[in-house]
Amino acid sequence: MSPRFTDLLTPAAKSIKASEIRELLRIIRAKKDVISLAGGIPDPRYFPLDELEDIMRVVIKNYGAYSLQYSETKGVIELREPLAKYLYETKGFRVDAEEIIITSGSQQGLDLIGRTFISPGDIVITESPSYLAALGVFRFYGAKLIGIPIDENGMKVELLEEQLRKLRSEGVKPKFIYVIPVAQNPGGTTMSRDRKRYLVELASQYDLLLVEDDPYSYFVFDPTVDTTPLRTIDKEGRVIYMSTVSKILAPGLRIGWIASPPELARRLELVKQYMDLHSPTLNQYILLEALKRELLKKHATRLVEVYREKRDAMISAIEEYFPDYVWYSRPVGGFFVFAYINKPGFNATKLMHTAIEKYKVAYVPGQSFHPDGRGENSMRLSFSYPPPETIREGIKRIGRLIKEN
Amino acid sequence: MSPRFTDLLTPAAKSIKASEIRELLRIIRAKKDVISLAGGIPDPRYFPLDELEDIMRVVIKNYGAYSLQYSETKGVIELREPLAKYLYETKGFRVDAEEIIITSGSQQGLDLIGRTFISPGDIVITESPSYLAALGVFRFYGAKLIGIPIDENGMKVELLEEQLRKLRSEGVKPKFIYVIPVAQNPGGTTMSRDRKRYLVELASQYDLLLVEDDPYSYFVFDPTVDTTPLRTIDKEGRVIYMSTVSKILAPGLRIGWIASPPELARRLELVKQYMDLHSPTLNQYILLEALKRELLKKHATRLVEVYREKRDAMISAIEEYFPDYVWYSRPVGGFFVFAYINKPGFNATKLMHTAIEKYKVAYVPGQSFHPDGRGENSMRLSFSYPPPETIREGIKRIGRLIKEN
Repeated sequence: MSPRFTDLLTPAAKSIKASEIRELLRIIRAKKDVISLAGGIPDPRYFPLDELEDIMRVVIKNYGAYSLQYSETKGVIELREPLAKYLYETKGFRVDAEEIIITSGSQQGLDLIGRTFISPGDIVITESPSYLAALGVFRFYGAKLIGIPIDENGMKVELLEEQLRKLRSEGVKPKFIYVIPVAQNPGGTTMSRDRKRYLVELASQYDLLLVEDDPYSYFVFDPTVDTTPLRTIDKEGRVIYMSTVSKILAPGLRIGWIASPPELARRLELVKQYMDLHSPTLNQYILLEALKRELLKKHATRLVEVYREKRDAMISAIEEYFPDYVWYSRPVGGFFVFAYINKPGFNATKLMHTAIEKYKVAYVPGQSFHPDGRGENSMRLSFSYPPPETIREGIKRIGRLIKEN
Repeated sequence: MSPRFTDLLTPAAKSIKASEIRELLRIIRAKKDVISLAGGIPDPRYFPLDELEDIMRVVIKNYGAYSLQYSETKGVIELREPLAKYLYETKGFRVDAEEIIITSGSQQGLDLIGRTFISPGDIVITESPSYLAALGVFRFYGAKLIGIPIDENGMKVELLEEQLRKLRSEGVKPKFIYVIPVAQNPGGTTMSRDRKRYLVELASQYDLLLVEDDPYSYFVFDPTVDTTPLRTIDKEGRVIYMSTVSKILAPGLRIGWIASPPELARRLELVKQYMDLHSPTLNQYILLEALKRELLKKHATRLVEVYREKRDAMISAIEEYFPDYVWYSRPVGGFFVFAYINKPGFNATKLMHTAIEKYKVAYVPGQSFHPDGRGENSMRLSFSYPPPETIREGIKRIGRLIKEN
């Protein structure tokens, strides 16, 4: 008789469920006639393949065995130093190399933060909607999530203030507030400068930690948009800033970083050590070489052109094909438009299979992005992968779905 | 005022301590006149640099954007299939590609298993001594560790049986038994076939899960040694088998794997998804290409020569310079000799700084490898990094330290 493994699992491992999006993507992949606006993966036609091939050659030539050996848990110092410089140049905040932890993509950053701070029952505040895998991992650690609604200027900070006041009156202190200020996933919204200032002030007033997730601000379509990170506005060391090369270079490298207040960096390092000793040395040297060549900046310029065209295709198609009662975001960056279909009884979750089978189009139902499980009438539409003409056709099909259901 | 982060940490994150070995290695690195037998890192002079450079070129050429894109949490199927074949050819057990999870090194495998099974207070049984980072991560999840002593034939399974009987009488069931059957770290011992059979029988009798960590059996110095994995002996699906390319290719790639019973593989996949979405796609294709070229097998042949010579240098020096009252293992593989200095009052932990300052030699005190905190009179001696003549001189110095203290 084989052991009953289920009895041996932790409660969290027992209750974990498959990601809805991943399962959905699996279904869609098999159906060639379905246009997918579901997945949020970068367009692989724009990976800098030739540059990366050359970079790998140079990494082995210049760093040799060092690039293949065990290395420091925080990440190799040769990378953390120029990365600190790059963050100052592009984001405007000074950070010491010792305050940076290289992670295996943003997801490991989220996991590391969750593992370091969240005990079962702890309160974590997020935007609503917010990044699914962040909600997932915070919940895995037992967090109770409180979602603050967004509008076109990002998190409604006045509602956050109400919530904080309420929690304080109950004697409850949240572990941290998780936000994606620029080109939010899935919201597609960007916080205004005023909202960011207000948020940082609230954090100070209520003595809170902010976790700022910033994968998209490195290629914003409109140069007039304010992309100043919370980290740059904050003067009290309350912001844990995290980002990744997944969107600006290649997700398959799994390299991200956390810039955190110094006393915390040491703690995160100790926790990360148990997770994987360190992120792949080779991949870190690849990023180092890319930074040396200013490939990230050059490539971002190219990505702006590519994704701006795709975003424009989606927005103009929405203007043409969606009825007036749909609210949708107008993203200044990132990969996503988020839409609320304000039509009584419209349920994007229930309509998902109809969309795929009858209308031959796929989106991600917005419900699971909402910490409180609402948002049945919402959907995330991704413009990152398909070419512009396919995006237009996909939106046309969703327009029909909305009108006819 | 900056937030008091310490108040926000989870109890586990608060109590975590820096790894003794890592801190030790940091001290030694600054001292050029000290011979280090402390670290367990592979000799970088034998990384297959040229082959890996060519492999990376071919990966970009053949797999292009696929090698840089997001990929399946379990690992790319193109890798898992030949890896399953490789495991059958080299280890003798059949595993379906769907039962394999690619991890970011063995450490992530240990973390994944810990996270999936261990709740605070759970019992985990290990060898004593055992791999430090495994003990560390199991403890991080709140495991109570029970160590079973080893001798030259590995874990003393008759003592395990006593322990299991005792636990059963108390109504306690361990979550799993963690073992490194071949060329154990730090013990340097290898389980005999009889012991392995006995262990698998006990697992069946007590309805237990075995976690088999096998980084070293791929290059064993003596071809007559039985390296059959527990996984091959077990017929009831009780063994979670894990290994890594860290010792047979390069640790900086951070690629390992878990072959687990099918119903468990799905569960591990879901938990891993929250950890890092997936291990680096690029690094997985590198391993795939290495497997295609049979580089692992070819390279293992070379490694056997290199590390056998180093092991021989260490053992013959020990025979010459260590007093009779020292018990030491005679490893058939791996990187380590373990020694118990059976001299009243000898304390390797306390003598560590004297060793470095006065005798100009470093080892890792054995105490922290013992789940019960004993073993003050033990030390781990690594022969992986230094050349043979340096190993001899290092052992000579430790011999003096032992006799004079």
